[in-house]
Amino acid sequence: MNRRKFFKNGSLLTLGATLLNPINVLASGTNNDLTFRGKKAKNIIIIISDGMSIGTLNMADLYLSRKTGMGTNWLQLYKDNLVSRGLMDMASASSIVTDSAAASSSWGGGERVYSGSINMGTKGEAHMPLWQKFKSVGKKAGCVTTVSITHATPAGFCVNEKSRHAQDKIAEKYLEQKFDVMMGGGDNYFSSEKRKDKKDMYASFISSGYQVVKTRKQMMGAEDNRPILGVFADDGLPYSIDRENSKELLQNVPSLAEMTQKAISLMKDHSEGFVLQVEAGKVDWAAHGNDISGLIGDQVAHDEAIKVAIDFATKDEETLVIITTDHGNANPGLIYGNEANDNFDSIQHYKHTNDWILKGLGKETSMSRIKERVKYANDVILSDDEAKKLLSYYTDLKTEDGLYNPRHLPFKVLAEIQQQHNSVGWISMKHSADYVELAMFGPGSQMLKPFIKNTELHYFMLEAAEVENNF
Amino acid sequence: MNRRKFFKNGSLLTLGATLLNPINVLASGTNNDLTFRGKKAKNIIIIISDGMSIGTLNMADLYLSRKTGMGTNWLQLYKDNLVSRGLMDMASASSIVTDSAAASSSWGGGERVYSGSINMGTKGEAHMPLWQKFKSVGKKAGCVTTVSITHATPAGFCVNEKSRHAQDKIAEKYLEQKFDVMMGGGDNYFSSEKRKDKKDMYASFISSGYQVVKTRKQMMGAEDNRPILGVFADDGLPYSIDRENSKELLQNVPSLAEMTQKAISLMKDHSEGFVLQVEAGKVDWAAHGNDISGLIGDQVAHDEAIKVAIDFATKDEETLVIITTDHGNANPGLIYGNEANDNFDSIQHYKHTNDWILKGLGKETSMSRIKERVKYANDVILSDDEAKKLLSYYTDLKTEDGLYNPRHLPFKVLAEIQQQHNSVGWISMKHSADYVELAMFGPGSQMLKPFIKNTELHYFMLEAAEVENNF
Ligand SMILES: [Zn+2]
Ligand SMILES: [Zn+2]
Repeated sequence: MNRRKFFKNGSLLTLGATLLNPINVLASGTNNDLTFRGKKAKNIIIIISDGMSIGTLNMADLYLSRKTGMGTNWLQLYKDNLVSRGLMDMASASSIVTDSAAASSSWGGGERVYSGSINMGTKGEAHMPLWQKFKSVGKKAGCVTTVSITHATPAGFCVNEKSRHAQDKIAEKYLEQKFDVMMGGGDNYFSSEKRKDKKDMYASFISSGYQVVKTRKQMMGAEDNRPILGVFADDGLPYSIDRENSKELLQNVPSLAEMTQKAISLMKDHSEGFVLQVEAGKVDWAAHGNDISGLIGDQVAHDEAIKVAIDFATKDEETLVIITTDHGNANPGLIYGNEANDNFDSIQHYKHTNDWILKGLGKETSMSRIKERVKYANDVILSDDEAKKLLSYYTDLKTEDGLYNPRHLPFKVLAEIQQQHNSVGWISMKHSADYVELAMFGPGSQMLKPFIKNTELHYFMLEAAEVENNF
Repeated sequence: MNRRKFFKNGSLLTLGATLLNPINVLASGTNNDLTFRGKKAKNIIIIISDGMSIGTLNMADLYLSRKTGMGTNWLQLYKDNLVSRGLMDMASASSIVTDSAAASSSWGGGERVYSGSINMGTKGEAHMPLWQKFKSVGKKAGCVTTVSITHATPAGFCVNEKSRHAQDKIAEKYLEQKFDVMMGGGDNYFSSEKRKDKKDMYASFISSGYQVVKTRKQMMGAEDNRPILGVFADDGLPYSIDRENSKELLQNVPSLAEMTQKAISLMKDHSEGFVLQVEAGKVDWAAHGNDISGLIGDQVAHDEAIKVAIDFATKDEETLVIITTDHGNANPGLIYGNEANDNFDSIQHYKHTNDWILKGLGKETSMSRIKERVKYANDVILSDDEAKKLLSYYTDLKTEDGLYNPRHLPFKVLAEIQQQHNSVGWISMKHSADYVELAMFGPGSQMLKPFIKNTELHYFMLEAAEVENNF
């Protein structure tokens, strides 16, 4: 795994030239900000929207523009000409269409692996994870996410593990490596009551010097000088829009932006710098559920984390911020029609996700109760036929399968009903092969080419930080 | 319409600075090629894939990569770091989701108009079309397309007309303006037998000094010193893959790349330069039909036209090449699954479009004949149920509507059947709101910001050519 060294990657030539002749730094980049000129990236923050098709970014931007007059922070960086952009090919070793484990491993380990595995190569070899490399040269390293902290995307930056599903084991490997900030959901994989082996992972983290926090308030009050484990839900955190419309969740669960802010506070004063991965993991779950308010809400939450990172990086001037996604999912889009604008704007009235709607229904739910719930959540009045169709999935033998749908709820049917009202379409409930959008801000960003392979990003981060890849 | 002058657009400052200090030209661009430094764009070639979602580009690139080992020319320009890239917001005055008339008018007239109209503003005012502006300063101007030359996209660069459907009138307006190269389909709008008013437009063009060509051979043999009208089909040209698998069509109908090559030959020696619009118009029609081999084949044809333009521009060094699309359509994508690679690769065996398959079926077609035709065209063996389902659309009252489907053929049903075999999904049979990909090569490209509004491109082209907007 050490065979690809620092000096092997062609873009180093650019960096080398840069160091000799700072004027050239900007020659190949779009980044107009001269303050980054010739600097290395002491810190790196990579902010991932998991499973974001380009239509997801587009609709979040349109949603915010039409609601508030200001679009996304992501695209504002484009409008202000502050970033370099690329497209990235995310294929795994097994397929053109990747899963999140292979996608994260391509960045985290620098090699393409089979879908489902975490930095374990096609011949069984282990690729040293990037956050371990950065730890070994003295940087602090951490991850925050809205799904379980042991999920595929953070795991791919941190550990080696044959299967992404071994989240119990992944929790143990995090402790071995002593990462500095690990926050998200996943009580199922830390709690002695919920783990199969009954190990109390919290106790182990505490005895290794960690502070463990389980509420937003505890997180806010945590000390800046000790490593932290934050676990705020059994599995994934609530969707952003469901959180915003629940006083209890607002109080107890931090937003992605708040976790990002805290993670930066905890690591920013470290003399050797830090690396941080921020993941809006439930954008992917929403796409798997064709759940438009889950999708837009969590994409907006991702966008707020971007602002936190860019605000820090702008002042800091030594932080490379990378913004991207690991693959498309469901390729959603707003569809042409006379009512397209009004239909799209109706989403502004949505108070809850489809996940929230469907989990609140059951065999015993009456037609009027279904209509009431959808009216409350979406401001849409279902026809009798539509309500019946939904209800039939609870009362008959019909079921839907799919990732993140263990209860076989009728996500597809609800999305099809909603499409009549909101004009949003989906190609499927699965990932797509689309090349993904990649943007960079800060020192190193000028090296980005307009098209790269996922694995190149691994070496890119090492080079931007001027860390030699001799592991 | 003259109120937005050359000096009003902010990016002129960049250009101004550039002229004073050539070193700065590259400061804000990704284009590494120093040969363009400080030059103005004497010529502009804009190459449009009509209705190209990002998944269309992605699948064409994957298709070529897996079939030939080399991806698209479009993305090769990215890999070689030779272009500037942006995202572009294509909304019309009436809708977030544009049609091709409003999209082309936004570039051609510099203002957003209502969907369906050609450079006629929301208050009925006419916006002077860009190719008329360039003609008036002495440049030659032309359009080539695979749909009728009087269709929305070429029309939007050339004329003012309340409705895109008035193709008869658009043909007359082309003659008034004496554009130098107009080639594509559209005999319906030029032939005295087919026009409602029985005017012989060909005779009128000839008496105005045009050479009129109606076959590939005639086009190839045309003189370089006279304006040309080329019309090679009643309406749109055949899909690229249907053309390639028909000796007769191959012989009689030119490819988009061949039309592009001829158009450049006809205009390149003009002392004042030229502007050329190249449109792969049937990518849009294929997306409206969820017709995967139509889509990929015509995207590849678009890509071959890119090569012609870039080869010319590389030698010429005074040509700005703009590559983009006017809106997403159907957001197609390759869907995750164990068979995704094999299914996608099966498209390499497709010999014909769904359009070809469905136009060859009728009420009287037998089940075995349907299966035979699909086996021949797609190398797929339909089940009895699938063949019955297709046939039922011819024998029963069921019909499909949709743009470019006047015969109400069952495009949607066929695409759904194919999805089981090729893993390609579609959100609808209509345009989408997705921001679109925009790339530029050559002098002026360094001014491109990573996100622009469609209307900005109008002023961008004037500025790149250093043509003052005082019309
Ligand atoms: Zn997923
Ligand atoms: Zn269209």
